[in-house]
Amino acid sequence: MNQPEQNTSHAPKWVYMFGDGIADGTAEMRDLLGGKGANLAEMCNLGLPVPPGFTVTTEVCAAYYDNDRALPEALGAQVDAALAHVGKVVGAEFGSRDNPLLVSVRSGSRASMPGMMDTVLNLGLNDETVEGLAKRSLDARFAYDSYRRFIQMYSNVVLGLEHHRFEDILEAAKDDNGYALDTELSAQDWREVVAGYKALVEEERGEPFPQDVHAQLWGALGAVFGSWQNQRAITYRRLHSIPDDWGTAVNVQAMVFGNMGETSATGVAFTRNPSTGEKALFGEFLINAQGEDVVAGIRTPQAITEAERRINGSSEPSMEAVMPESFAHLKAIYEKLEGHYRDMQDLEFTVQEGKLWMLQTRTGKRTARAALKIAVDMAREKLISRQEAVLRIDPSSLDQLLHPTLDPRAERDIVATGLPASPGAACGAIVFDPDDAEQARNAGKPVILVRVETSPEDIHGMHAAEGILTTRGGMTSHAAVVARGMGTPCVSGAGAVRIDYAAGTMTAGGHTLNKGDIITIDGAAGHVIRGEVPTIQPDLTGDFGVIIEWADKVRRMEVRTNAETPGDARVAREFGAEGIGLCRTEHMFFEADRIQAVREMILAGDEAGRRAALAKILPMQRNDFKSLFEIMSGLPVTIRLLDPPLHEFLPSGEKEIAQLAEAMGVDPEIVARRIGDLHEFNPMLGHRGCRLAITYPEIAEMQARAIFEAAIEAGKTTGKAVIPEVMVPLVATRAELDQIKERIVAVGEQVQGEAGERLDYLVGTMIELPRACLGAGDIAKVAEFFSFGTNDLTQTAFGISRDDSAGFLAEYIRKGVLEADPFITIDRAGVGELMKIAAERGRESRPGLKLGICGEHGGDPASIGLCETIGLDYVSCSPFRVPIARLAAAQAALRKN
Amino acid sequence: MNQPEQNTSHAPKWVYMFGDGIADGTAEMRDLLGGKGANLAEMCNLGLPVPPGFTVTTEVCAAYYDNDRALPEALGAQVDAALAHVGKVVGAEFGSRDNPLLVSVRSGSRASMPGMMDTVLNLGLNDETVEGLAKRSLDARFAYDSYRRFIQMYSNVVLGLEHHRFEDILEAAKDDNGYALDTELSAQDWREVVAGYKALVEEERGEPFPQDVHAQLWGALGAVFGSWQNQRAITYRRLHSIPDDWGTAVNVQAMVFGNMGETSATGVAFTRNPSTGEKALFGEFLINAQGEDVVAGIRTPQAITEAERRINGSSEPSMEAVMPESFAHLKAIYEKLEGHYRDMQDLEFTVQEGKLWMLQTRTGKRTARAALKIAVDMAREKLISRQEAVLRIDPSSLDQLLHPTLDPRAERDIVATGLPASPGAACGAIVFDPDDAEQARNAGKPVILVRVETSPEDIHGMHAAEGILTTRGGMTSHAAVVARGMGTPCVSGAGAVRIDYAAGTMTAGGHTLNKGDIITIDGAAGHVIRGEVPTIQPDLTGDFGVIIEWADKVRRMEVRTNAETPGDARVAREFGAEGIGLCRTEHMFFEADRIQAVREMILAGDEAGRRAALAKILPMQRNDFKSLFEIMSGLPVTIRLLDPPLHEFLPSGEKEIAQLAEAMGVDPEIVARRIGDLHEFNPMLGHRGCRLAITYPEIAEMQARAIFEAAIEAGKTTGKAVIPEVMVPLVATRAELDQIKERIVAVGEQVQGEAGERLDYLVGTMIELPRACLGAGDIAKVAEFFSFGTNDLTQTAFGISRDDSAGFLAEYIRKGVLEADPFITIDRAGVGELMKIAAERGRESRPGLKLGICGEHGGDPASIGLCETIGLDYVSCSPFRVPIARLAAAQAALRKN
Repeated sequence: MNQPEQNTSHAPKWVYMFGDGIADGTAEMRDLLGGKGANLAEMCNLGLPVPPGFTVTTEVCAAYYDNDRALPEALGAQVDAALAHVGKVVGAEFGSRDNPLLVSVRSGSRASMPGMMDTVLNLGLNDETVEGLAKRSLDARFAYDSYRRFIQMYSNVVLGLEHHRFEDILEAAKDDNGYALDTELSAQDWREVVAGYKALVEEERGEPFPQDVHAQLWGALGAVFGSWQNQRAITYRRLHSIPDDWGTAVNVQAMVFGNMGETSATGVAFTRNPSTGEKALFGEFLINAQGEDVVAGIRTPQAITEAERRINGSSEPSMEAVMPESFAHLKAIYEKLEGHYRDMQDLEFTVQEGKLWMLQTRTGKRTARAALKIAVDMAREKLISRQEAVLRIDPSSLDQLLHPTLDPRAERDIVATGLPASPGAACGAIVFDPDDAEQARNAGKPVILVRVETSPEDIHGMHAAEGILTTRGGMTSHAAVVARGMGTPCVSGAGAVRIDYAAGTMTAGGHTLNKGDIITIDGAAGHVIRGEVPTIQPDLTGDFGVIIEWADKVRRMEVRTNAETPGDARVAREFGAEGIGLCRTEHMFFEADRIQAVREMILAGDEAGRRAALAKILPMQRNDFKSLFEIMSGLPVTIRLLDPPLHEFLPSGEKEIAQLAEAMGVDPEIVARRIGDLHEFNPMLGHRGCRLAITYPEIAEMQARAIFEAAIEAGKTTGKAVIPEVMVPLVATRAELDQIKERIVAVGEQVQGEAGERLDYLVGTMIELPRACLGAGDIAKVAEFFSFGTNDLTQTAFGISRDDSAGFLAEYIRKGVLEADPFITIDRAGVGELMKIAAERGRESRPGLKLGICGEHGGDPASIGLCETIGLDYVSCSPFRVPIARLAAAQAALRKN
Repeated sequence: MNQPEQNTSHAPKWVYMFGDGIADGTAEMRDLLGGKGANLAEMCNLGLPVPPGFTVTTEVCAAYYDNDRALPEALGAQVDAALAHVGKVVGAEFGSRDNPLLVSVRSGSRASMPGMMDTVLNLGLNDETVEGLAKRSLDARFAYDSYRRFIQMYSNVVLGLEHHRFEDILEAAKDDNGYALDTELSAQDWREVVAGYKALVEEERGEPFPQDVHAQLWGALGAVFGSWQNQRAITYRRLHSIPDDWGTAVNVQAMVFGNMGETSATGVAFTRNPSTGEKALFGEFLINAQGEDVVAGIRTPQAITEAERRINGSSEPSMEAVMPESFAHLKAIYEKLEGHYRDMQDLEFTVQEGKLWMLQTRTGKRTARAALKIAVDMAREKLISRQEAVLRIDPSSLDQLLHPTLDPRAERDIVATGLPASPGAACGAIVFDPDDAEQARNAGKPVILVRVETSPEDIHGMHAAEGILTTRGGMTSHAAVVARGMGTPCVSGAGAVRIDYAAGTMTAGGHTLNKGDIITIDGAAGHVIRGEVPTIQPDLTGDFGVIIEWADKVRRMEVRTNAETPGDARVAREFGAEGIGLCRTEHMFFEADRIQAVREMILAGDEAGRRAALAKILPMQRNDFKSLFEIMSGLPVTIRLLDPPLHEFLPSGEKEIAQLAEAMGVDPEIVARRIGDLHEFNPMLGHRGCRLAITYPEIAEMQARAIFEAAIEAGKTTGKAVIPEVMVPLVATRAELDQIKERIVAVGEQVQGEAGERLDYLVGTMIELPRACLGAGDIAKVAEFFSFGTNDLTQTAFGISRDDSAGFLAEYIRKGVLEADPFITIDRAGVGELMKIAAERGRESRPGLKLGICGEHGGDPASIGLCETIGLDYVSCSPFRVPIARLAAAQAALRKN
């Protein structure tokens, strides 16, 4: 332990007092006092009853480390003076055997680092003061329990002994007495445990447990400062980009006890209802109890207000009824704090022998629904502005409101947990085969499609299912991406689930479930649940609508949607989408009525054969586009030319190959050979995207024709034409786009000639390769718009396949190598810089170049912030994320100003 | 046709005359006169006998396009004057029926664009002048053949009629007469063909073939200028980055004929022997013949010198003997030209009625061997400097000299052609299985390993084989990369070869070959040849050694090698490698004595199991490194930690899985499941590189220990320790390297403590991901060196898998989308910029950071030039490319100064 060295020289102010209605510090002094210290000071300055104490500043932390982990010599006098003052305020004395002052010693840094550093409670107890506490509390059992807790905590934090050594002693004591629970131990039993603890410390340390309360305090101060550099804290700082040199402050505060008889109590309260947002004091308390008792749930806490008691139908009296004075005091404090902090507060308080003490105030956590109501109410109360209200809502939290959710009151038999791949809850019978899913849907029976992984061949089954469960793949696996796009709940990568397709069974959590058995999945939590769990439908009216309306007033970027089915397009437009930013045409190729022609096209030996097959697909594609254009009339629609490698459209099983060969009237071996020829080691980096349009320009020509013809037709039916934006994927160089654009424009001329009508359209490109970002200046000479495909850009910039990343990315985040999954939030330093380079070079060579994003990140609030910084014109996201993106874009615009 | 408009205003000088020993232009006026025009002028200025003519400048080309494809009006008078002058020099007259002047009309742009634009020969012939030609040549057959050729060429180039229409008429004439060959046609027959041609033109055009020779000339001028914008020329320019606005000049030159009797002749000559480099006039000629006759091979050409005639053992007299005056003249000219151009010249000449005319001089093509001899000889003759000699050698051409080659005189029965994946020729019995290859090697029998594709499991068989043939994969497929690294000849991606593993046969070119049949492959040409073809062994002494010695004097960058076997390391050191830039440790993992332990490690369920298996591998790895360190004593050796995904080490077949399970004493299903768990969709972007070291740090620790222990041991045996450079692959962020370096340094401390010795080593990283290039400043704070892994950097920047690129990359190059295969030559605009960014940011944060390249590009001369520009410290390449890299690095240094 680092006793301060003796020195009489004049020292800086290292200790800031608080309590008794005044404080040396304020809320603004966060850098010096840490968050907790500054907040305690602020509450004192507001005149609130805070247990007195003092903060040892972050400068002491710096000095501690500069001085080879020794506390500065001159600190001693300041701490002694502060301790004496605290004792005076509470009428007790540190180390007094009659009326001992006990203190807590807690870290508190500038940024919140919950649980990362060490805490010591009940400091000031020794063999003598424990008797004083017993007398004062009239509860020897409580006093000795507190003492043994203090020894255990102190020995662990300050002396470095392991918890389990103490637990072993306690367990042995219980065994000896035949007790099952800690609560069965008497005061005498605890005395014996304390003796055992002290013997252990002496044995391990070669010296007794420190009885000198000042030595205890110095030890605790050194240990808490030292915990700034423990491994947990270092990792946390790396993850949250908190500089090492900030250091922590340490708060020493008088302990107060809510368990000193019937005039004592402890509780937690919210200034508004955190579930509903209703403006009413909400909380619970327990008489003659400590804070941990409220949490532990051994006794049922009582309501704070009478109103709440009535709602709960409780016979236990409310605080309002039994402690009217403390209640009135608390009520006044809550109004003061909410007004001061201008947000809903989460309070902790203790009543010690009739006196109310405030232990903490902080901004309260709340449900998404409550957050909306509170923000709208507070704006109407003029407590905050409308813009502040918009900024108060976490856009991601809206996801809860946009999908059905599990009834929180229902029981859940969770058999496995996977990744929360697509939010929402769904329930249905297990099917393992996409065809079965479709049949069940046609029979009106809800199903959950369970697959090891999904592929584009499974799309029809995914559409038909209420929910999707896969045992492999990450947050951006095929199943996850498609499910989010469709708004279908999905749990992916549930590795503990084993599927036996042949037997038609899955095993999970020790259960074997058969095809047809009912399961429920919670795509927001990643839970797989046996049986049916009731769900709650979303409600998007009221406060939700008000906030979104306020958000739209300040938003700069447009919000489009990624959609290719009329259903998705309609949902998105209802959610406020301002066009389509990405229509993936390959999804259309999988539809049952055309997959045969698609396969003929792929298997054709020459261009003529391909053109013949494409001619069959043309009218169907035209109709697809026409429906979309009608739904999106008057808005822009971006259509991406065929992107995936052709082998994705071909079957892989022997049986399916035989079926296809028969349908086409060719030798199965020829089909198998062609499939073999098309095999790729790394399909993500293979013959796909614009490379298809270079080698098979006839495919791009067919698609361009379908788009242009549909646009002219839809323009006639709706009277408000869309402006199609033809998007060429996976461009790396200008020359690729040059050649493909030439073909598209030629088709455009032809179609306009045939129709005798003018048609406005744009030809642009996805920017999804690092090479394209660097060459963007050149590419923009040809491209009329850029749309950032940040999924593939992240894959290529990092060299990580999103489908294969589940195996190591979670570990990367756990070990602090990556702050966040780059497939969820854009990596600013790498992918973000590539986007910035592309945007700058593109706009330099084509001023006013339209820029958007259509990767999954387009629906991620943090990434939307980056898009605003780069100056994109729009973001595009899956239909169910459109409202989230509208809010996030508004916030990004507000934060930029 | 674009007749010049009449206008009397003063015009710029558009026509530059040459001939008669003087010229308006010089060799320096390439921009205005094009390459051919400038060179013809230069020869005239040297006083050489060049058929007179004139050049219409590139400015006229610009005017032609500015003026909507019309020739400027004022050009007419200048051309007429020039024509008259030409006629005067040769004593003939354009359009004269007695003594007609015939001219050629040829394009000639600043940069050579061979065959891309149009040419018209024999212009000036019509129904009257053809008779004059017949009389002057005493050969009516020749005159009418020339006329019909002119009509055909003119009609095609100027009038846009297709060749085959004329061929049809000729074929019909031959059929009618029962002729098989053109040479059977008589003068009268040709007259009839001419009549047929003229009728065709009149029918198609509605007007007769132009008889006005001036109209012919205007038509040809317009057409040749117009051909600057034909598709071939546009594509060629795009591929070679030639600006569109350069335009072409047009050369009009008097025709001379070598077929005007026994005093006429035509021939080609080299100023030195292009095969051997010997300093002696070398060439062949034919009396009474035209240039095309020399090429056509119908008559056997005669030697030019007596010395050569004797060597050939020919009974036909030499030019020296039969035309002593012309020969003496030619000899004088050759000396003058070689002295003037300071390089070996390739000359074309014609003797018309005893007068020697020079038609062309250009730098002569030569074999690699000749190039070396000529460069060394010329430097010794003081004709060029030693630095110029170094710059004269194409580094890539050395490849021919470093490997066995096929005897050029031997017959070759080529059955298929693939990609020239690894140079050299090899011959052996066909085997389809790597194990068979190994057995055959042990039995002393040379084999060619034939596979659809190779994988790391096949390494032992690849080592054992004389050559490797694959039917799939590109220039950078596994087979190609490994083969080049081993210096083993390889033909990859021979798609026309079909392999039936089950039957043990391959089919190619209509032949079915069985296991055991002998084939030969030519890895420099991509040929697959049936049977045995004799080979010639390389010889690296003499001129080769001299040039490399001169090169080393001016080289700045070091040249290291990529090697992991003692054999490769030894070869590389003999070739002058200055260390190892890349030792791929995974190759060591496949050795038979350790693959079992590697697989145990992978299949182990926990860290303890992995550590137990790794302990078995440690001594073997240490010995591997020790051998390398001994061979490379005193030089740096860079060792890359394990890079490939673990599934590459596991078997895939059911039988092999069963064997492995038995050897390990576990259930085959467990092995199969683990293999299934490790499966990846895109292994290139999967769980590999430093991601393995993050999730299984124990592997990196074992490797670090093996490296450090080996370095200390080898230092003792050799007395000259290597400085090991531990290289962490596939780093994307600094945090990855932080964590791994910490482990490596900890092992380093341990090993040094155990050995009681100090050890110098570096820890650095591959830079092979775009994310790493952008974050290089941050990474360099930890990395002590960067080594650019340009294979993976190209794959990720472009989003192209090199293993899957064969299907479309060839088409990309054919269609002009890419100038070169980016896996062979670094893409400067994209990958090059990423490297530049990384080098700059890296050196900014760590001045003096060591930079190298270890991708395949390290042996590519063009890429080495880029490396010099970026300022790398070294390049590293496969052993057989070390001499090439030494020369290329020297050239890069010379070019930069």
